[in-house]
Amino acid sequence: MGAVAREQAAGARGSLTREKILAEAARIFNRRGYHGTTLDDVARALGVTKAALYYHVSSKEALLFQCHQVLIEIALEGLRRARERASAPDEQLRLTLAHYIEGIMDQLRGSVVLVEDGALTPAHQRQVIAGRDEYERQLRELIARGMRDGVFVPCDPKLVGFALLGAGNWIPKWYSPAGSRAPKEIAEAFAAYLVRGLQRQPSAEAILPLAEAGASA
Amino acid sequence: MGAVAREQAAGARGSLTREKILAEAARIFNRRGYHGTTLDDVARALGVTKAALYYHVSSKEALLFQCHQVLIEIALEGLRRARERASAPDEQLRLTLAHYIEGIMDQLRGSVVLVEDGALTPAHQRQVIAGRDEYERQLRELIARGMRDGVFVPCDPKLVGFALLGAGNWIPKWYSPAGSRAPKEIAEAFAAYLVRGLQRQPSAEAILPLAEAGASA
Repeated sequence: MGAVAREQAAGARGSLTREKILAEAARIFNRRGYHGTTLDDVARALGVTKAALYYHVSSKEALLFQCHQVLIEIALEGLRRARERASAPDEQLRLTLAHYIEGIMDQLRGSVVLVEDGALTPAHQRQVIAGRDEYERQLRELIARGMRDGVFVPCDPKLVGFALLGAGNWIPKWYSPAGSRAPKEIAEAFAAYLVRGLQRQPSAEAILPLAEAGASA
Repeated sequence: MGAVAREQAAGARGSLTREKILAEAARIFNRRGYHGTTLDDVARALGVTKAALYYHVSSKEALLFQCHQVLIEIALEGLRRARERASAPDEQLRLTLAHYIEGIMDQLRGSVVLVEDGALTPAHQRQVIAGRDEYERQLRELIARGMRDGVFVPCDPKLVGFALLGAGNWIPKWYSPAGSRAPKEIAEAFAAYLVRGLQRQPSAEAILPLAEAGASA
């Protein structure tokens, strides 16, 4: 993957990796809004100078664009891996969602999906929308296949697809890395619950992990 | 309800109702971010002067606070109505979610939940968080009751509660009033799907409305 290679290259120059920069930027954009954030804020949060940050990114807008692009890469990668690892549509959907949700929580980089629209240049905006459209199209196709195979009940794949994505995209609003749940646990519980809503004959087993006494997510 | 009475009073003075102001403000805050929006922008979108707007709201922050408060009122009202109309936990949850989701889509006022955090004064922020916490607490209690009654499979009500809310709160990101689906249809499909994921023995019936050829939501 291009992202990984670039990040390793950055990593070789020091601890300020592309991944760290993008995760921190996504978190700040989400908290303060794009217009309420400056590159100085991002540099301060990373504990580096603005000059060091400019070595990696040319502008605030480029930073936001890269945040979006990384998330789309992760989303599409989840679909590819799910197809390699499973053939049944419910299992494929479960793996796809778990990968996406874990990717969103990893360093909270998924926060970027909550940032206000209209901050990107029109060309970048078009590219991000095209990437998201492609992901949504493939998700809907997977849901439709599950319907054709009789594994899923009939539904509108477009509406259900939006419900799936919303459940995942909302996570940065409540998730805290200091909470008691590991990202992997949350991702698997969400994926199991969201697939269960479509299965014609879901198992009556518990959706794991169960609540702990006094647990906070 | 206080909101309705105030809105009727505003309505009597002309067409610039509190409801219209708040819905338009929520939409603009979501599109441009709180920091990227001015009261002039809101006035312009409503087709009124800034002075006319100031007759109704004292500041941009007060406007954002009221947007949040209206949505919390709607959310809690949905729980109350559901308790009046049904006793089974799955039916109560379905009615609760349908009310909340329809409320979010009505004039797109739900957009406010996507606005960046940290824009409210600390006192207002505490009030909004207390209202949301109360709604989430009651939702979790309803899910836990469904588990105790054997209607829902065992799960972590906190995690599932966040999934439900996320699916609904994400709607302003994709919903267009110009689309082919009525808010009521979308609300009912979402509620049916989200409750189905919890039911121990869900019906194998379709989640309505089904996809139309070439439909867009």
